[in-house]
Amino acid sequence: MENLNEFLNCYNEKDHSIALNNRNIYVSYSGDYKGNPINHVHNSCELLFIEQGGGEYKIRDQQYHIEKNGVLIIGGTDPHSRRFTQVPCIRYGLTVLPAFLQSLPVINSYMNVYRTHSPEEANKLRGIDDVTFNRMVSIIWQLREETKDNGQGKGDMVYALLLEMTIILNRLLQLEKQDISGMYKTMSDIKNYIDFHYAENLSLEELSRIFYLQPNTISKNFRKTFEKNINSYIHSVRVSNAVRVLEKNDISITELSEVVGYASVNTFLRQFRESLGISPLQYKKQFEQYKEDAGKTRLTWDIREKKKY
Amino acid sequence: MENLNEFLNCYNEKDHSIALNNRNIYVSYSGDYKGNPINHVHNSCELLFIEQGGGEYKIRDQQYHIEKNGVLIIGGTDPHSRRFTQVPCIRYGLTVLPAFLQSLPVINSYMNVYRTHSPEEANKLRGIDDVTFNRMVSIIWQLREETKDNGQGKGDMVYALLLEMTIILNRLLQLEKQDISGMYKTMSDIKNYIDFHYAENLSLEELSRIFYLQPNTISKNFRKTFEKNINSYIHSVRVSNAVRVLEKNDISITELSEVVGYASVNTFLRQFRESLGISPLQYKKQFEQYKEDAGKTRLTWDIREKKKY
Repeated sequence: MENLNEFLNCYNEKDHSIALNNRNIYVSYSGDYKGNPINHVHNSCELLFIEQGGGEYKIRDQQYHIEKNGVLIIGGTDPHSRRFTQVPCIRYGLTVLPAFLQSLPVINSYMNVYRTHSPEEANKLRGIDDVTFNRMVSIIWQLREETKDNGQGKGDMVYALLLEMTIILNRLLQLEKQDISGMYKTMSDIKNYIDFHYAENLSLEELSRIFYLQPNTISKNFRKTFEKNINSYIHSVRVSNAVRVLEKNDISITELSEVVGYASVNTFLRQFRESLGISPLQYKKQFEQYKEDAGKTRLTWDIREKKKY
Repeated sequence: MENLNEFLNCYNEKDHSIALNNRNIYVSYSGDYKGNPINHVHNSCELLFIEQGGGEYKIRDQQYHIEKNGVLIIGGTDPHSRRFTQVPCIRYGLTVLPAFLQSLPVINSYMNVYRTHSPEEANKLRGIDDVTFNRMVSIIWQLREETKDNGQGKGDMVYALLLEMTIILNRLLQLEKQDISGMYKTMSDIKNYIDFHYAENLSLEELSRIFYLQPNTISKNFRKTFEKNINSYIHSVRVSNAVRVLEKNDISITELSEVVGYASVNTFLRQFRESLGISPLQYKKQFEQYKEDAGKTRLTWDIREKKKY
């Protein structure tokens, strides 16, 4: 391992923040010395591959331990915070938009991989053998190359690499392949519709009109398919998007709540606090502080580049 | 490199011969000390990845040089022979049935990879940089694991690995992605039909009846799409299959010619000789000798297994 001081937070790469909500796929490499406990939420599903160090993640209301040779999967729109107990905590990050994964053949049968797992289930991704763990890291490196270059067949290569990663994770988690026809397909379509139309009217009546299904059929089957209440899901998508807008812009709370689809500012404020435990203004302040801390460290990819994984 | 005497021909693995015509995918690892010049033909497309040594291949009427860090692609049903100039010539082999590749989404747009290339084009696969070459070898190793085990999502993993390999090769060859709609699709369907129904009547009139196209439309477009005369293609599929039957069975030439779809023994004999330069009986004799030579060497995968690529 090279000089540890060289390891740093490359979350400040210029695209990182946008990526969390709007990029199909994004890879990062970072190492933190302090366990910044900022609350965090985004549309993308986040996968962390721990190379060194350790800590705790809180996702929704559950605690997860991370350590060397472990992978942690955080479902899209699930609020999470972290605390590092062994620093630096050096890890690769892979974020992928669920709607993008859903659009990919074969991978769309393995979407159960890309959600927050129960702590028991998540244990299957701890203490992974070196061969398997290094293979995943090598896929991350190749994805890094692909997302940075404009190679021939780049989209197809990203697809191949993601499919490989998906099956490795699915084997570790020992999940069943999903039948993607029928009601599952319809519910996925509704979920994707919410992801892209969060700023519009998403009442059950409106969704019912668009998808030709009874409101309570939608509500019942959405919960059955994704183990989430559809209204909570809509709120979480709106809050995730609000967070990204907040990070990038100076905007009034009234305007912000409208931009992400709320008719009532009060509902927006209540939902934001429910997700992140703080108000939008407090979040903005914390984020500025976080960015400043992160900005003090330098990027790491270049150093590792020499290693030729 | 371990003791070279340990490197040997693992073409005598029990499935190798069957694999060449009937397995979707098969991987091998072999090293020959002598340049056995046996003429060879099979349905599968064969990819050779040269690790050490060198030699010459003759494919149809063209000469190809192989050497370290080179890949040679031999199109399905193309007769070929070899002569090693630097022994042992140690190489990984990947054989894939064209009809199988054609059935795989995305890969079916890159079918131009899986044919015999002109010697100029084939030069692009010589002297490949170590990183890229090792990545391909690592894919071969993973394919080996997948085709040997019964892992969860095995078919999907093989697909991911083949897609990755396909795009790497396509980048090296700098080929265009194929539009797989319209006439290309129809011609591929006809080609696959021939691959599976070689024992039946494949006259242009019969194909015309099955595919609702004028005989000369089929004939013209088949040549345009695959750069091969459709009747020559039919002969080459029949001869490839005859060769496999011959290797495995004691069968009369009359019976053999019928089994692979010939009404006339003379046509069969003429086509066989045109493909392989010898008669079926001479081939059988040569093959027995070849098998005996190969049987004296042992398999290599097990030795390499320890290396954990």
